[in-house]
Amino acid sequence: MKKFVLAMAVASVTTVSAFAALAEESNPAIVHRHGIYKIMAGHMTAMKSILFLGFEAPADLAFHAQGILDAFGHMGNSYPPGSDKGETKAKPEIWTQPDKLKQRATEAVDAAKALVAATAGTDKKATIAAFKGMGEKCKACHDDFRKE
Amino acid sequence: MKKFVLAMAVASVTTVSAFAALAEESNPAIVHRHGIYKIMAGHMTAMKSILFLGFEAPADLAFHAQGILDAFGHMGNSYPPGSDKGETKAKPEIWTQPDKLKQRATEAVDAAKALVAATAGTDKKATIAAFKGMGEKCKACHDDFRKE
Repeated sequence: MKKFVLAMAVASVTTVSAFAALAEESNPAIVHRHGIYKIMAGHMTAMKSILFLGFEAPADLAFHAQGILDAFGHMGNSYPPGSDKGETKAKPEIWTQPDKLKQRATEAVDAAKALVAATAGTDKKATIAAFKGMGEKCKACHDDFRKE
Repeated sequence: MKKFVLAMAVASVTTVSAFAALAEESNPAIVHRHGIYKIMAGHMTAMKSILFLGFEAPADLAFHAQGILDAFGHMGNSYPPGSDKGETKAKPEIWTQPDKLKQRATEAVDAAKALVAATAGTDKKATIAAFKGMGEKCKACHDDFRKE
């Protein structure tokens, strides 16, 4: 568990440094996808506080899981040609390995669906497992397609 | 317009630096409220890309506006006693001026409702006006209750 929380922490810091450069970015696709990822990160952060730190809002877990899935549903055309130009950590592989990217995206969406399903019940262990599954799929895509 | 975009940019950077310290924070209320604010900031960022930068997803404006309003609805008990301890930019006034805080919160929720109403239509100018109104209410609360 400690390792997992640490990994989440590292992921958060990495994400933050990516956003630090965002403020003056004007490439529409870059700004939009950062917004979408920020929504997802926010829901994950709120879930973390409920699942691991004892914030008293267990009924909100389903809301946050749905929020992540809904954000995936509003990604739009996030990596169009030209959206490698600007303050982005997107690796060139995003454009040269579209099949792999699509696979990672599908896995992440499936993980979000599993998280929604888990939060529909009251089994906290199942929700924690699904939450970890979601975090792993976030990380898998970052490992392959995001510069450190 | 430029001034407004600049203000948004400054606000984003400030928010980012607040989140940079968050990764290892374990105060549940601090982590939770940062998650909620990150959700809101993500929706605002996505809306910015659509309204001002030309990201082609006008149909998503209503989704993002509702996402902000829903996030307000899931703030929970965000500033309980003791949640001034940790990596937080919350000013002491949050706890010493509860009536003013409540007023600012009500104004912000009203702005989110106005944004939802505006995005239900197709008048881009009205949505931009409501978006600015939302940003102003975010800033008003930050000015009063968040350390720089």
